[in-house]
Amino acid sequence: MIISGKNSIEEAFVAKKTINRVYINNKIHDDFCERIVKYCKQNGIRYDFVDKKILDKFSLHNQGYVAEITDYEYSSLDEILNSKKEKGSFIILLDGVEDPHNLGSITRVADCVGVDGIVIENRHCCNVNETVYKTSCGAINHVKIAKVTNLNDTIKYLKKNGVWVFACDMDGADVFSSDLTGNVAIVLGGEGQGVSMLTKKLCDGVVSLPMFGKVNSLNVSTACSAIVYEIVRQRQKNG
Amino acid sequence: MIISGKNSIEEAFVAKKTINRVYINNKIHDDFCERIVKYCKQNGIRYDFVDKKILDKFSLHNQGYVAEITDYEYSSLDEILNSKKEKGSFIILLDGVEDPHNLGSITRVADCVGVDGIVIENRHCCNVNETVYKTSCGAINHVKIAKVTNLNDTIKYLKKNGVWVFACDMDGADVFSSDLTGNVAIVLGGEGQGVSMLTKKLCDGVVSLPMFGKVNSLNVSTACSAIVYEIVRQRQKNG
Repeated sequence: MIISGKNSIEEAFVAKKTINRVYINNKIHDDFCERIVKYCKQNGIRYDFVDKKILDKFSLHNQGYVAEITDYEYSSLDEILNSKKEKGSFIILLDGVEDPHNLGSITRVADCVGVDGIVIENRHCCNVNETVYKTSCGAINHVKIAKVTNLNDTIKYLKKNGVWVFACDMDGADVFSSDLTGNVAIVLGGEGQGVSMLTKKLCDGVVSLPMFGKVNSLNVSTACSAIVYEIVRQRQKNG
Repeated sequence: MIISGKNSIEEAFVAKKTINRVYINNKIHDDFCERIVKYCKQNGIRYDFVDKKILDKFSLHNQGYVAEITDYEYSSLDEILNSKKEKGSFIILLDGVEDPHNLGSITRVADCVGVDGIVIENRHCCNVNETVYKTSCGAINHVKIAKVTNLNDTIKYLKKNGVWVFACDMDGADVFSSDLTGNVAIVLGGEGQGVSMLTKKLCDGVVSLPMFGKVNSLNVSTACSAIVYEIVRQRQKNG
């Protein structure tokens, strides 16, 4: 996978990702450049000073830096289940989130609240690509993502393993009056369709954020943020 | 101002914005086209069927539709103060949010929770442009935005008018243990810098979202969502 821009590359270095090669704009000689070159030398990573045109072919908005890293390594569902911490499982399932900006943004939120992992579907979700990498501001290096064939089967499996699964959609119970402590997974739907009917039926419940506006539509990542932080609040309160 | 795409134009029609002119791709004959033409005829709005090239000059991603509407009308700070509802003032102040995607996204959240308005600074914030319009999914038509010369003067003015002002930044009090009921305004900073030092000092307090990750950095709109929904929760609880 190609990543570009100072932030993305710095985060890949910090997270000790396998970096195969680095391309640097041959007109740039700043502090960051010195740091990168030093790191490459120390770790035996090939680096080349190249013309801006070559960098731009890899990716626009590269800020003079492009790196080739090994593809994102997905986790398995069981790895996520086994990452359960003291306060119980904390998992995000995505049903048809196709915009990589949203996946990146959700990954960033997921890192902040310390979820065990995110589950996406093979077919109806975008892959971890450069946009996800960039939008996540490096959080992608620290958050487990599992790809499953069928989200509904995953929900059944999670329930069998003692996880309460809640769909977040309209017309559900007020999220602030719902008990979201213990082992919990939330299902978020893509923009437009929301969580599919069958998936909602499989869940233990549907929760909603109260709405007081005219348009009353949240982006999936802002909805995610409000809901996972409510889970954090309830867990804190429970001690 | 030029807006483009079906959603943005539909929302402008629904909100009864002043539309000066509509341009439609002359190769398109769908239901939306029929509806738009009918509406234009009823309201005496000029519409033209034009070549795709002309539309693309106005804006890419136009989906075949471009409209010229009157510029966004900003509100005054007093208009926002006077919009106070039963549970008290609920205002968002932005300190240096320069990315229009973030302003649009925050506006969308602001509509959902029913804030009285958003305050931005003349110089250090982006204007309401086409990107804000599009990212807000039409919420911009329903949310008051005031532009002020100096955010710190605004904070002093709000405090004098009985509003509690809280900066949202790192190293503050846990937002879940802070009382955010009554007349309240929150200050959110732009990506990178956060809320400026002087502004923080002027506020009644600094509140933070707890962080449990490795990167621990939230985008301003996802942070906004978690915080304003906590305000909503506290208000609901207070009855």
